[in-house]
Amino acid sequence: MGNITIALDAMGGDRAPDIVINGAALAGKRYPEATFLIFGDQTKIGPLLDEHPKLQAVSNVVHTEEFVSGDDKPSIAIRQGRKSSMQLAINSVKDGEAQCVVSAGNTGALMAMSKLTLRMLPGIDRPAICALCPTQKGQSAMLDLGANIECNANNLLQFGVLGAAYVKSLLGIKIPTVGLLNVGEEEIKGGDVVKQAAVLFRDSDFPFDFRGFVEGDDVGAGTVDVFVIDGFTGNLMLKAIEGTVQLYTEYLREAFKSSGGSKLVGLLARNAFKRLKARIDPRIYNGATFLGLNGIVVKSHGSTDDFGFSNAIGVSVDMVKNGLNDIITEELDGYVERKGQKTN
Amino acid sequence: MGNITIALDAMGGDRAPDIVINGAALAGKRYPEATFLIFGDQTKIGPLLDEHPKLQAVSNVVHTEEFVSGDDKPSIAIRQGRKSSMQLAINSVKDGEAQCVVSAGNTGALMAMSKLTLRMLPGIDRPAICALCPTQKGQSAMLDLGANIECNANNLLQFGVLGAAYVKSLLGIKIPTVGLLNVGEEEIKGGDVVKQAAVLFRDSDFPFDFRGFVEGDDVGAGTVDVFVIDGFTGNLMLKAIEGTVQLYTEYLREAFKSSGGSKLVGLLARNAFKRLKARIDPRIYNGATFLGLNGIVVKSHGSTDDFGFSNAIGVSVDMVKNGLNDIITEELDGYVERKGQKTN
Repeated sequence: MGNITIALDAMGGDRAPDIVINGAALAGKRYPEATFLIFGDQTKIGPLLDEHPKLQAVSNVVHTEEFVSGDDKPSIAIRQGRKSSMQLAINSVKDGEAQCVVSAGNTGALMAMSKLTLRMLPGIDRPAICALCPTQKGQSAMLDLGANIECNANNLLQFGVLGAAYVKSLLGIKIPTVGLLNVGEEEIKGGDVVKQAAVLFRDSDFPFDFRGFVEGDDVGAGTVDVFVIDGFTGNLMLKAIEGTVQLYTEYLREAFKSSGGSKLVGLLARNAFKRLKARIDPRIYNGATFLGLNGIVVKSHGSTDDFGFSNAIGVSVDMVKNGLNDIITEELDGYVERKGQKTN
Repeated sequence: MGNITIALDAMGGDRAPDIVINGAALAGKRYPEATFLIFGDQTKIGPLLDEHPKLQAVSNVVHTEEFVSGDDKPSIAIRQGRKSSMQLAINSVKDGEAQCVVSAGNTGALMAMSKLTLRMLPGIDRPAICALCPTQKGQSAMLDLGANIECNANNLLQFGVLGAAYVKSLLGIKIPTVGLLNVGEEEIKGGDVVKQAAVLFRDSDFPFDFRGFVEGDDVGAGTVDVFVIDGFTGNLMLKAIEGTVQLYTEYLREAFKSSGGSKLVGLLARNAFKRLKARIDPRIYNGATFLGLNGIVVKSHGSTDDFGFSNAIGVSVDMVKNGLNDIITEELDGYVERKGQKTN
C-alpha cells in the first residue's frame, strides 16, 4: 500500500492548532504510510512543526488566515468561509490531493461544507454521523448522531446500509448485525417511522443481518454491531452516555478519595484504574465519520487533546485503507440493480 | 401525620409476589406510618406474610387469582383484566381506600388502566413517566420516559409543570430549574416541536426557572433540576444511561480481577466500592412515577429485588406525604386563572 494523504483543518477545535499538529505527530508514529496536507495559519503551525521534524518531513502546509469559528451558523460559514482552513481542506479531498479530511471544528459547518463540496454517494439521500461505542462485547457503531433531526423510514434504512459498510470496513465484520433502536422490542412498539423502517429493513436484501428492534441498554450490552436511530435521539443518547461515563468516573474518584485508608488503596489500585481507563477513555473513541458523502470526512471532538486527535486521524486512515466508500458503493449498486429487476 | 395506605399489585414483576412482600417488609421498617392493601393470590402471599409478622399486622390482603402478564397488550389487559391484581389495586386509589399504588408489572397496561380509572388532573392532556437520575450535583428528574412516543410543544410544557411539582414535592426544591433537552444549546438547534416548546416555556409564568435548551451530557452533570423530553427519546436515553452504568461496572470488575495483585487490591478497596455502589446502584433510583394522573401511581422496574421494590414504595410514600398532586393542581389552577385574565 502506498502513501495516504490526510487533509487536516489545523484551525478547528478548542485548542487548535496545537492539538492538531501534536495529534498528527502521534498518529504519524502509528501510521508510517501517512502524509499530511495541513491547512491553516503558517505563523502558528510553523513553530509547532519545528518541534516534530519527522512530521514536518511528511507534511505540506497550505497557508490561510481564515477559519470557521465554533459558533458560526453553517450557512454563514459556507458563504464567508470560502478560504477557510476547513473549506480548503475539504476541497483537497474533492480535488484528489488528499484521501480524507479530519477537523475538530464546528460540526454543522463541516457537515454543510462537506455535503456541498463532496456531494452524496449515489443512492444516499442524506449523510449520517457515525461513531464507535464501547460495549460489553467490544465495539459497535451507532448512527445518526446528529446530522438529521428528522428522519423518514427510508433514511433509517440507508443509515443501516452505511453503518454496516462502516463496521465491515473498520472492524472487519463480514455480515454485520443491525438493530433499530426503539422503546421496546415488540413489533407494536414505537412511532410510525420506526415501524415503517422495520418493514423496509425486513424486505431489503442488503448483506447484513437485521435483528429488529433493540432498546437503549442494548448499546452498552453490544447486542448488535450497528445501532440505527434518528439524529435527534442519537445525539441525545450519545451525550447521555458520555455524561454517564463522566459521572461514574467522578463517583469512583470520590469513593477512593473519601478516607485516608482508601487513598492508599487508590494508589495500590493504580494499575487496575489504568486498565479501566484504557477501555472507557472517550479519547479512544474520538473521531466520528460523516457517512454517505463522496469522500471521507472525520470529525474530532472540539475539546479533545493530542491523543484524542491522533485517534480521529486513525479512524480516517483505517477507512481509506479498507476502502469504506467502495464497500458502500458496491452494496448500493447491487441494491439499485436488484430493485430494478423487481420492478421489471 | 396519620397513616398512609399503599396499594400493592403483588403479582406484577419478574419475581412477584416475593419481591413485593419482602420489599414492603423493608419499607415498613423505614416508614412506620405505612399500612398496606395487598392485591393478589392469597395462597402465595399468605406464607410470605407469615415470615414478616410486623408487616402482616399492618396489611390487608385482597384475594384475586387474576393478574396482568408482562407481555399482555394494554388494550387486552384493560378488557380481560377487570379482576386483575393491577386493576383492583388502582381501583382502591380511585375509591379512596389507598393513597397510592405501586406495581412492578407491565408498564403499558399499568399506564392504560391508571389513565382510564383515575383520569387526568385538570389542565393536563397526557400523563408522563418521571424518575430521578443521579447527577454530579445530586439528583435531577427526567420526563417523559416512555409514556408518549410523540409529543407536541404543549405536552412538553405540561411535562415541565409536572416535573417541577415533582422535584418540589420529592426533593423540596422551591423554584426548580427546568431545561428542554435538545441537540444543542443555541436557539436555532433542533426540530420544530422543541423550538415551539421553548417559546411556550419562555412565555409561561409557571413558578419554575426555565433555563432553555440543555444537552444529553447535562443529565449526568445535573445542570438543571428537571429535564424535559419526549417519551421516545427519554426512554432511549434512560436505558442508554442504565446500559452505560452496567458496562462501566463490568469494566471496573474486570480491571480489578485481571491480575492476582489487583485481586488483593480489590479486596482492600471493598469499602470504596461500597461507597460507590451506594451512589450508582440503580435500585436506589427505582420507582418511576406516572405524573398528571388524578392519583399517585408508581412503577417499579420489573426485574428489581426486595431492596429496589422497597425504594419504589418509598417514592410513593414521599409523594403522598408532600402532597404532590395538590402542588400540581395549585400551579395549574393559577395558570388557568392567569390565562383567563390575559384573554379578558
